[in-house]
Amino acid sequence: MMKYHTRKWIKPEDLNPNGTLFGGRLLEWIDEEAALYAIIQLENPKTVTKFMSEIDFRSSAREGDIIEIGIDILKFGTASLTLTCQVRNKMTHEVIIAIDKIVMVSLDENGKAIPHGKTQKEFAKDRL
Amino acid sequence: MMKYHTRKWIKPEDLNPNGTLFGGRLLEWIDEEAALYAIIQLENPKTVTKFMSEIDFRSSAREGDIIEIGIDILKFGTASLTLTCQVRNKMTHEVIIAIDKIVMVSLDENGKAIPHGKTQKEFAKDRL
Amino acid sequence: MMKYHTRKWIKPEDLNPNGTLFGGRLLEWIDEEAALYAIIQLENPKTVTKFMSEIDFRSSAREGDIIEIGIDILKFGTASLTLTCQVRNKMTHEVIIAIDKIVMVSLDENGKAIPHGKTQKEFAKDRL
Amino acid sequence: MMKYHTRKWIKPEDLNPNGTLFGGRLLEWIDEEAALYAIIQLENPKTVTKFMSEIDFRSSAREGDIIEIGIDILKFGTASLTLTCQVRNKMTHEVIIAIDKIVMVSLDENGKAIPHGKTQKEFAKDRL
Amino acid sequence: MMKYHTRKWIKPEDLNPNGTLFGGRLLEWIDEEAALYAIIQLENPKTVTKFMSEIDFRSSAREGDIIEIGIDILKFGTASLTLTCQVRNKMTHEVIIAIDKIVMVSLDENGKAIPHGKTQKEFAKDRL
Amino acid sequence: MMKYHTRKWIKPEDLNPNGTLFGGRLLEWIDEEAALYAIIQLENPKTVTKFMSEIDFRSSAREGDIIEIGIDILKFGTASLTLTCQVRNKMTHEVIIAIDKIVMVSLDENGKAIPHGKTQKEFAKDRL
Repeated sequence: MMKYHTRKWIKPEDLNPNGTLFGGRLLEWIDEEAALYAIIQLENPKTVTKFMSEIDFRSSAREGDIIEIGIDILKFGTASLTLTCQVRNKMTHEVIIAIDKIVMVSLDENGKAIPHGKTQKEFAKDRL
Repeated sequence: MMKYHTRKWIKPEDLNPNGTLFGGRLLEWIDEEAALYAIIQLENPKTVTKFMSEIDFRSSAREGDIIEIGIDILKFGTASLTLTCQVRNKMTHEVIIAIDKIVMVSLDENGKAIPHGKTQKEFAKDRL
Repeated sequence: MMKYHTRKWIKPEDLNPNGTLFGGRLLEWIDEEAALYAIIQLENPKTVTKFMSEIDFRSSAREGDIIEIGIDILKFGTASLTLTCQVRNKMTHEVIIAIDKIVMVSLDENGKAIPHGKTQKEFAKDRL
Repeated sequence: MMKYHTRKWIKPEDLNPNGTLFGGRLLEWIDEEAALYAIIQLENPKTVTKFMSEIDFRSSAREGDIIEIGIDILKFGTASLTLTCQVRNKMTHEVIIAIDKIVMVSLDENGKAIPHGKTQKEFAKDRL
Repeated sequence: MMKYHTRKWIKPEDLNPNGTLFGGRLLEWIDEEAALYAIIQLENPKTVTKFMSEIDFRSSAREGDIIEIGIDILKFGTASLTLTCQVRNKMTHEVIIAIDKIVMVSLDENGKAIPHGKTQKEFAKDRL
Repeated sequence: MMKYHTRKWIKPEDLNPNGTLFGGRLLEWIDEEAALYAIIQLENPKTVTKFMSEIDFRSSAREGDIIEIGIDILKFGTASLTLTCQVRNKMTHEVIIAIDKIVMVSLDENGKAIPHGKTQKEFAKDRL
C-alpha cells in the first residue's frame, strides 16, 4: 500500500512563470524521495536512479498548496528495487503526477551494480 | 504520538563549511514542516509561526544521512496551535534537534489573529 | 536534427551525496529546456509539460563536467508539441540521459488546451 | 552594544506563499550570521551552534524590505560563546525577530568541545 | 570612507567545481548589496543597477572563509548614485574583488529615471 | 561571430523585488557560461575568471521571458582567453546586457597561470 511521507509547501521559488508548480521542481523532489526510500530499504547509501517509466502530469498545483509524495515497492530485484510513485494534493487528494515504475540500483564502491540481499520491505523500527 | 512524515537526504548544498548539516538549513526545513502541518490542521493557509521555544542542537548529521521531521500537537488555542517537533536520523533514530513548543497562529486577510474553530487533531482522509 | 543549446557546468550544489550529478537536478534542467523550447516554437508563454516517456539514466556526470541539453521536434499536434531530448557530456559526447518523447501543451488563459496553429519548426531570426 | 552588519533585500525567493518573509529563511540567515560572528571572535572555523533560546517572531517583512541582522556578545565561556541577536527593518528599525541567547561552541578536529582561550571581544583590525 | 557591512560565510553551495568561491555567486552578492545600499540612501525601492566599471578578480576565497562587502558613495547625480565596492577577506583583509564604479538609477513607476532629490549620505538613524 | 547557446527561462526565483530580472542572477549566469566556454576551448577544467570590462545593463527582462547568452572569442593569450559576451531576449533580440571583454585564465594545480597552448577556436566535434 502506498505510504505518503514527505510533504512540500509550494512557495514562490517553486513556481514557473505561469504561477503554477514548476514541473522540474516536482521531478527533483520525486527523485530525492525515491533515492532516500531505496537507501532506507537497501541499507546502501550508494543507490541511484536508473530508470523511470512514463510520467503523466495529471494536474497542477498552485502557490500555497501542500502536496505529499507517496512511494510503494513493486519488486525486489537482485541489485535493483522497483518503486512506484504518486504525488497528490494533501487536502483534496487530487493526483498531480504518477510514475508507475522507478528502478533504483544498488552500487558498489566502483559504481558497479551489486546484489543488495533484500527481498522484502523492512521498517526502520524493526532494525533498532 | 509524534508522527514522522517529511524526510530529507543531506546533499552537498545542505552542508556548512565543516562538512556537517548546516543548522540554518535544518531550521528552514522545520519551519516549513510546522507551517504546513498547522495549515492542514487549521484548514487556513494563512497560518504563521509566532514563537519557538528553546532549540537544542543535540547531534549533527552528515552528507548522505537521511533525516525525518516529527511533529505532534500539544494544544489547540483559540487562534493558535501549539506543536512540538523532533528531528532524528532515519536509520539510527538518534535525535538531531528538538523544539518543545512551536506556536502557530491563524490569521485573517488583514494579518490579524482569528479563531480557527478547531479543538482536536483531524486527518485529511476523514474530511474527504 | 537534434540541436544542443543550453549547457551546464556541474557545481557542488548539483551533486548528490555520492558525489555525482543529482538526477533530480538534471530532470529540473530538462523540464526547463523543454518548456522554453516549446514556448519559442509555439509563441505561447503558457505552454506546459504534459507527458514524458521513459527516462533512461545511461551514465553519470561528475563535478566539473560540462553537459549540453539537446532537443528536437518530433511532431506538431493541434494543441501539443512533441519533443525528444538527449543530454550528453560536452567533451566526450557520452549520453547521460535520453527521453524519447516530451509532450508539451499550449494552454489558454483558463488553463485549457488550445490550438497553437503551428505546423513546422521556425527560427526566431525568421520572425524578426 | 548591538552592531548591525549583514543586510538582506527580501526577494521573491525569500517569501512564503502568503507573500511575507518565510520564517525559515530568516532563521537560516541568523544561524549563518551567528556562526560567522563566532568564528571571527574565536578564530576557530570549527565553531557550531549548540543552543538557541526562545524565538519571538514579532513582526513580518515584505518583498522589497531591507533588513539588518544585529549580534552582540553576552558571555565568553571556556569552550563556548553566548551571543544575542535581533533582526530589524533597516528603514523603520521595527524589530522582526529577537533571540536572547545563541550559544556557539568551539570544537577540535574530532568534534569535541575545546577551550578557545578568548575572554573579550576583539576587532579584526586590531589583529592585523 | 568605505564601510563594510554584509558578511558571507563561504559554504559548499557557493563553490565552483575547483573548490574556490564561484565568481558568479560573488557578483550576485555584490549586486544585491549595491542595490540595497542605494535604496537606503535614495529612499526609493525602485532603484536599479545601470552600470558597473571594470571588475578585477584579485584573489580567491575558499570554503569556510568569511568575506565582507564594502560600499562607499562616489557621487550623487540627479537620478543616479555612483558607488564604489570592495570585497575582502574578513580575517586577513586581503582584497578579493574591486569595482570602482557601480551606477544605480532611481526609477519611477513606469521604469523611467527620476530625480531622487538627494545630495549627501544619510544615516537611517538620523531619519528616525 | 557570436554564438548563442545557453538559454534561461525567467522564473519567480530570478526576480528582484521590483518584478524584473535580478541583475545579480544574470551576472551569475554569465560567469558560468564564460567559465564553461573557456574550459571547452582550453581543455583545462581549472580555468577561472580574471577580469570583466565595463558592464552596461541596457534593458531589463521580465518573468516568463526567455533569454540567451552569446559568447565569442576575441583573443588567445599565452595563459589567457579573452571572450566577449552579449545577453539578449530570445524572441525580440533586444540586448539586455553586454560585456566587451571577459578574461579567463588557465591555471595549474597550484593555482598559477600556465600556457594553454591553444591559438584558435576549436569545436568539440573536431576532437572526437
